[in-house]
Amino acid sequence: MGHFKINSKDVMFILKEQLQYGRLCKLDRYSDQNEKVLDLLVKEAIEFAKGVLDPLNEVGETEGLKFENNQVKCPPGFKEAFKKYGEDGWTAAARDLEHGGQGFPHMMRIVINDFMYGACQSFNMAPSLTHGAAHLIESFGTKALIDTYVPKMFDGTWAGTMCLTEPNAGSNLAALETTAYPEGDHYKIKGTKIFISWGEHDLADNIVHLVLARIDGEPEGVRGISLFVVPKMRVNADGSVGEPNDVVCTGIEEKLGLHASPTAALSFGAKDGCIGYLCGEKNKGLAHMFQMMNAARINTGVSGMAMASTAYLNALAYVKDRIQGRDIAGRQKGEVAIIHHPDVRRMLLWMKANVDGMRSMIYTGAFWSDLALELPEGEERGHYENLTDFMTPIIKAYCSDLGFRVCEIAMQCLGGYGYCRDYPIEQYLRDAKIMSLYEGTNGIQSTDLMGRKMTIRDGACVKAFQKEIEGFCEAHREHPELGDRIRALYGVVQRLLEVSEDMKQRQKSDPLQWASYTYPALLAYGEVIMCWRLLDMAVIAAETLKKKKSDFYQGKVFQATYYVDTTLPHTLATLESCLRPGREVMDIPDGAF
Amino acid sequence: MGHFKINSKDVMFILKEQLQYGRLCKLDRYSDQNEKVLDLLVKEAIEFAKGVLDPLNEVGETEGLKFENNQVKCPPGFKEAFKKYGEDGWTAAARDLEHGGQGFPHMMRIVINDFMYGACQSFNMAPSLTHGAAHLIESFGTKALIDTYVPKMFDGTWAGTMCLTEPNAGSNLAALETTAYPEGDHYKIKGTKIFISWGEHDLADNIVHLVLARIDGEPEGVRGISLFVVPKMRVNADGSVGEPNDVVCTGIEEKLGLHASPTAALSFGAKDGCIGYLCGEKNKGLAHMFQMMNAARINTGVSGMAMASTAYLNALAYVKDRIQGRDIAGRQKGEVAIIHHPDVRRMLLWMKANVDGMRSMIYTGAFWSDLALELPEGEERGHYENLTDFMTPIIKAYCSDLGFRVCEIAMQCLGGYGYCRDYPIEQYLRDAKIMSLYEGTNGIQSTDLMGRKMTIRDGACVKAFQKEIEGFCEAHREHPELGDRIRALYGVVQRLLEVSEDMKQRQKSDPLQWASYTYPALLAYGEVIMCWRLLDMAVIAAETLKKKKSDFYQGKVFQATYYVDTTLPHTLATLESCLRPGREVMDIPDGAF
Repeated sequence: MGHFKINSKDVMFILKEQLQYGRLCKLDRYSDQNEKVLDLLVKEAIEFAKGVLDPLNEVGETEGLKFENNQVKCPPGFKEAFKKYGEDGWTAAARDLEHGGQGFPHMMRIVINDFMYGACQSFNMAPSLTHGAAHLIESFGTKALIDTYVPKMFDGTWAGTMCLTEPNAGSNLAALETTAYPEGDHYKIKGTKIFISWGEHDLADNIVHLVLARIDGEPEGVRGISLFVVPKMRVNADGSVGEPNDVVCTGIEEKLGLHASPTAALSFGAKDGCIGYLCGEKNKGLAHMFQMMNAARINTGVSGMAMASTAYLNALAYVKDRIQGRDIAGRQKGEVAIIHHPDVRRMLLWMKANVDGMRSMIYTGAFWSDLALELPEGEERGHYENLTDFMTPIIKAYCSDLGFRVCEIAMQCLGGYGYCRDYPIEQYLRDAKIMSLYEGTNGIQSTDLMGRKMTIRDGACVKAFQKEIEGFCEAHREHPELGDRIRALYGVVQRLLEVSEDMKQRQKSDPLQWASYTYPALLAYGEVIMCWRLLDMAVIAAETLKKKKSDFYQGKVFQATYYVDTTLPHTLATLESCLRPGREVMDIPDGAF
Repeated sequence: MGHFKINSKDVMFILKEQLQYGRLCKLDRYSDQNEKVLDLLVKEAIEFAKGVLDPLNEVGETEGLKFENNQVKCPPGFKEAFKKYGEDGWTAAARDLEHGGQGFPHMMRIVINDFMYGACQSFNMAPSLTHGAAHLIESFGTKALIDTYVPKMFDGTWAGTMCLTEPNAGSNLAALETTAYPEGDHYKIKGTKIFISWGEHDLADNIVHLVLARIDGEPEGVRGISLFVVPKMRVNADGSVGEPNDVVCTGIEEKLGLHASPTAALSFGAKDGCIGYLCGEKNKGLAHMFQMMNAARINTGVSGMAMASTAYLNALAYVKDRIQGRDIAGRQKGEVAIIHHPDVRRMLLWMKANVDGMRSMIYTGAFWSDLALELPEGEERGHYENLTDFMTPIIKAYCSDLGFRVCEIAMQCLGGYGYCRDYPIEQYLRDAKIMSLYEGTNGIQSTDLMGRKMTIRDGACVKAFQKEIEGFCEAHREHPELGDRIRALYGVVQRLLEVSEDMKQRQKSDPLQWASYTYPALLAYGEVIMCWRLLDMAVIAAETLKKKKSDFYQGKVFQATYYVDTTLPHTLATLESCLRPGREVMDIPDGAF
């Protein structure tokens, strides 16, 4: 029985009316594509998510994973789905044709993931990680590495992972201890990695680990980290799978959720038999890995949004059906569906606005990212690179925290039933919780945003953001219906930029105080972006409403005015707190906690 | 292995320095008690929670419940603990000596539950429901009913439940269909109840269900509901357990959490063999049941706070131990414990303030409730009755939502480890989620607060609240250190009262719009009460700090100034939203969701 729900009208509105994503087809790389092809891709991705992935979500939860003899057995159907996912071209949809990709715009990988994560978060991590790992080899590996690994990873024959964390190196990768010892054209790898998503499983004949390690004798800290390709099974000269490569799964975690996604502890080279291949430049491993990490961060935001979306729509379906209580205003006789109760509608509208705003935020970021990758070198491309860098920590942290919150409110709509396993929301809630924790905790995202992203390239990232959001506000400040909200947004943006400048100074003068307020500041950025995207959609919808009456377009206007009015005053309140001189967070003695 | 943690200094500060709970001993009912006896009770309750209940929390989660042949088998240790809980006097600690109680102040039941729920929420629901059910019989039953049931329930021989919900009567009890047919001195009961916590189990020889049902032929709606005592096993004339009473458990729910607390569906009288006894007046069943429901609502807030408390302290222990990353200000060399990272401290201080504020809010409410029950009839007693009525929905809803939020932030402090079952926080998070849903969803609490509680007795409840909080603000408005915050609180309280008055009018003129903003208004009440209680503690602590340096007292001041400064601006923002004319929540067409 499937639970995944998606409102494809909302999706297509953002893609076509708000972003006009067909514009991407004017870029050289997509010159043989057109909007119709992209529309078809979206339609087919939704069908795949519903038909293939959605049924896995429940079986994954009920059957779970079996760990025996250092091997992980996945729930029924997962192996077949993984193969089909690759074969049907979803894994490499946005990769170049050269190594087996489909050549679609980069942003389509995000759009596809919206549905795939929404249908089965546990499963979709496997092809998503495989894609990221293969793309890393494609970007930085030698031709031999590419030829050996990439096509098989793209087509679902082999899987891939990202191996960063160690028992004593989580948030702080500088401390990692896994070591690579040179040996001929390759290295011997020795070390332990933990929290490796899909680090061991039976979906594919081989698992290609992308491993951060320090070459023996290289500098301490992040300056001495290199990237290695370390297959679970060695690969024969003819490309077939050979002997085991001394990569042993020593256990998998018992977790709150994601019960069908193995979180593995891996031992590399315990018997001195683990071979790895340098990928990219020596000691540039962390820089290389950031390609995959940044994609993973965006995808974390996508997951949070996607689970919020299906949770909201499941709650919506429930409240339309559930009969309970009388109409408070006596508009109908007898018992009514609870969608008519104002407090239930309040939760629905709040969820709708948040899901639509997050989706627009993420798709907009993905659209910019395509421009950053595919525009010719120059100022315009640089502008979109800056935007992409800026949006990454916001999308990751804001959409993960908010996605969890939406799942919580969706559960609330069901009353006591929401707490029961008969409904899918409790699983969404559990699965969604990981998003704020992995791929760099949300606290770390906030120091990235308010630190590095505010200062690199002389503040060009935040300037690019300012240009975009102010451009919107200026273009529509006199809008007859929405102008007051747009001017209000403009005002809050000005305050946000002042606070950001102040915090930039404070980062130098008083880093402890600065770091006590980076997370609230990130939330403020998230909220103004949500207001912006929702108002942008409302401006478009209002134009259509001049011509015809439409519930759908009316909903876009209502969600924007409701969200903006009830959010911006809180954003201002948050910003004031960022500037307060109080130093309680740092001054409170440890013994007082 | 136990996980329960409690900071008894925080507990005793509220009891002794803030509330001076020894004052209760001046009341007639407690004339043979003194503060030392109460202190000892607190100490012993903590020991019992740690020694007996805490070990059950993990075994309850891992072993869970077995349902076979309509019977529920509980995890190892539960039966023995239930018996000991009753025998040692915890179930009936606050009940009169007459029927086997210990005669302690009513509020001590809340204080005891703080620890017991914190140690094992699943388990403690059993004696807590037993207490509530027995007290209901004690309050409204005949002497025969009392003599037969109450002493055995108080001493842990038998258990009790509260049977309200039916498949089509959850939030709306008016729709209930369970029927009682008169037969001699008793009734035949026929019907189905669902979501009955501890509705079936093997902890005791008998389970005494307190059942709402409609006597055949009595009016529809709540005016025709009566209360019945319906034992699982009939009771022989000599008080021993007799034949089964045709109460059959047809299933238990699979839930997000509380895996050791059976949530049962019960069938009464399927074979026409279920006997029940009227408890209290015919057709007054709902009014009688409110005694137990109100206690359950308060206890729901207690549970939320208690789980938040142990989650916070578990996170605190983790961040003191976990070494990761360098000090951002270079105060120490090498890697440091993560308690030194500002964003971690921000989360700790936020949790500390919220846990301490909730505990103070709840204990204060419980203290008032004791005065409402034990003062001689008159104006003063009426004042505390009004306060008790007013606080009940706030404590239930605010502390349940916030308790869950604290568990979420506690998990965040552990990074990826927080998501793993190796640590207790993921269980606290799951267990805590039910609090916003059961005993009346938080949305329903908000309409109770902003509707009934604002209007009954000509608004006396909110006037009593106003008198208390304004009294505090006026007494301390010139406080040298805290005066500015206290004046700020006073200002927000004025705005809150204006908004409440406005909403009271709107409830009549535009109930739909009114009901779209009752939940935000409840949150605003919760926040000002938190500010008040935290500032009250800070005023006391500041006095002590004049005499001696103390981390503990300094923490009370810091948590108050931080909380108030970062909360009141948001409270104002929420209040403005409550008055906005926008009608999006009601005007959005259903088809736009």
